[in-house]
Amino acid sequence: MKVQLGARSYDILIGRGVMHGAGRTISARLPKARLAIITDETVARLHLERFRDGLDAAGIGHVCLPVPAGERSKSFPVFQSLCEQVLDARLERGDAILAFGGGVVGDLAGFVAASVRRGMSFIQVPTTLLAQVDSSVGGKTGINAPQGKNLIGAFHQPALVLADTALLDTLPDRDFRAGYAEVVKYGLLGDAAFFEWLEVNRQGVFRGGAERDEAVARSCQAKADVVAADELEGGRRALLNLGHTFGHALEAAVDYHTERLVHGEGVAIGIMLAFEFSARLGLLPDLDVGRVKHHLTGAGLPTRLSDIPGQLPPVDVLMDSIAQDKKVSRGELTFILVRGIGQAFVERGVDPAAVRAFLEEKLTQ
Amino acid sequence: MKVQLGARSYDILIGRGVMHGAGRTISARLPKARLAIITDETVARLHLERFRDGLDAAGIGHVCLPVPAGERSKSFPVFQSLCEQVLDARLERGDAILAFGGGVVGDLAGFVAASVRRGMSFIQVPTTLLAQVDSSVGGKTGINAPQGKNLIGAFHQPALVLADTALLDTLPDRDFRAGYAEVVKYGLLGDAAFFEWLEVNRQGVFRGGAERDEAVARSCQAKADVVAADELEGGRRALLNLGHTFGHALEAAVDYHTERLVHGEGVAIGIMLAFEFSARLGLLPDLDVGRVKHHLTGAGLPTRLSDIPGQLPPVDVLMDSIAQDKKVSRGELTFILVRGIGQAFVERGVDPAAVRAFLEEKLTQ
Repeated sequence: MKVQLGARSYDILIGRGVMHGAGRTISARLPKARLAIITDETVARLHLERFRDGLDAAGIGHVCLPVPAGERSKSFPVFQSLCEQVLDARLERGDAILAFGGGVVGDLAGFVAASVRRGMSFIQVPTTLLAQVDSSVGGKTGINAPQGKNLIGAFHQPALVLADTALLDTLPDRDFRAGYAEVVKYGLLGDAAFFEWLEVNRQGVFRGGAERDEAVARSCQAKADVVAADELEGGRRALLNLGHTFGHALEAAVDYHTERLVHGEGVAIGIMLAFEFSARLGLLPDLDVGRVKHHLTGAGLPTRLSDIPGQLPPVDVLMDSIAQDKKVSRGELTFILVRGIGQAFVERGVDPAAVRAFLEEKLTQ
Repeated sequence: MKVQLGARSYDILIGRGVMHGAGRTISARLPKARLAIITDETVARLHLERFRDGLDAAGIGHVCLPVPAGERSKSFPVFQSLCEQVLDARLERGDAILAFGGGVVGDLAGFVAASVRRGMSFIQVPTTLLAQVDSSVGGKTGINAPQGKNLIGAFHQPALVLADTALLDTLPDRDFRAGYAEVVKYGLLGDAAFFEWLEVNRQGVFRGGAERDEAVARSCQAKADVVAADELEGGRRALLNLGHTFGHALEAAVDYHTERLVHGEGVAIGIMLAFEFSARLGLLPDLDVGRVKHHLTGAGLPTRLSDIPGQLPPVDVLMDSIAQDKKVSRGELTFILVRGIGQAFVERGVDPAAVRAFLEEKLTQ
């Protein structure tokens, strides 16, 4: 599969075992490049040795830069430390940063690749479902600020994405489910047929095998199409944020404590809120809301604010996070709303009072 | 004057007093944008009040974020603090970061603009000769790492450059001279006629008036032409680094203490070393070396390692800095050498032993 971006086009290779050909695949695209592998300690323990063996066999020089697992590594101090380690390893502009991990590792490593020497080559080897279907494709990179998630970063496209679906066999159930929220999102935002396919094949996707590979491939294709049409999020790309404005606010509300909420869970609740809020505005029938809720809960995903363990902050704090979202423009709230399954659209100038009243009600349910 | 970069093209306005029309000029290009003005404390003291009055008169909302003057502000902690202050000020993607200062402020503010919300609009109002003729044009932004200058950053083009030559009236002589080294560079690298013009008009340029404006304009045009041909420094843009590989190593050698050496002085010595090393390789006549030396010393610029006050580190340290330069590729040294005045070229695979022997000799002169 190819992401069409002119001179910045790149391939996504998807399937069981594609990781094992990584050495040859990388050598063919970036001859003589050395690699800095940024990974997290969990992934390193499970998969790094075999991955390095493959690189050694292909004669690719590399250094490994592990970071602690979890969202908190997307911080200024870790970013600075990685930049300095890459420089210490004497990697040059033509060398590459390789992200070997989930979304956190990919976002962080991508921003390092964008920034060291004003831009080095970048390779994504995503090891989670979320990273394979979403964050590894499209070039969004970044770290978190005290004011919110992903507020500091760059658009920096990878030169290659290797999505080895066999790596998902060792993924904890909770992380697989969380990634599945992003898969469902592609159906809900613009492809009702894909959502229907998921309604039929969800269990196959969770079990692994051909359905899983197909779900990953269809998701990547959906993302690649949107990115090719709108690389820098001037318009249509914003649809990919379905569920994310609410979701980000919830992640901030738990201070990014992943024991309480991981990104995909925030997206699942956020999608549900976007559907319910759209229904409240009279945009779509309650039937569609019910279908989405049924599918997400069937997949074991949270759909209500009360599904988040512990106390949530008051509505003011949530509204404040929403106002800091990157999608805010000239102080106007912008949301991705829906007219039905597969029919998301960008709504500017959403009334903050309506959002606040809606959230206040949801906080007490 | 326009920098031609397709969708990222932008205007450079040059002349005495262009700063006073900044409000209208900015409003016309970025309607309703709010500004975060990043400036240094010296520039703020001299010029900020008048500049802000102009913005107020045009109804442009803005916050001011001053940083300490000097190269040491191009650091991770200052970068982080500025990013967080911009977010605290609730600036959005369509708002702009405005750099009001010299090269340090421009490089730092540009990297902030490139990174906050993955890219905000950026305006340069350069207040030094160096920034007006070099760093404000072309989109190179960044901060320094322990391993060397400008090693962390981004290519991020401004939306507008306002070069008010009247601001140079208050520039200390030493800073004007240092900026002049970059003006001379444009003649030496590719425009012998401009160098000859400078030989005739140097005193006029230093006095101010029409010659100064012309020197700034010709320099900006030279830079804009090179950048338009090669935005990301794949080839010809590297010629702009004439004198910079040696110069950066010297700045690192004095640990960026500007009492000992400022960037333009490092460039002047670096240009001289590039000419002398080229002559040593038999590439050009000694007569050309003499002409360049005569012109730079006439302008009050240093040309020898011994012109730098205090002790320099041993040759190993200088060679180490040179090996960390961004222009290094596959471990090969790349230098900008010259075949004559106005005839610079990129030379790959320069023998490190020859460079070392040359520098060792220069260190004892």
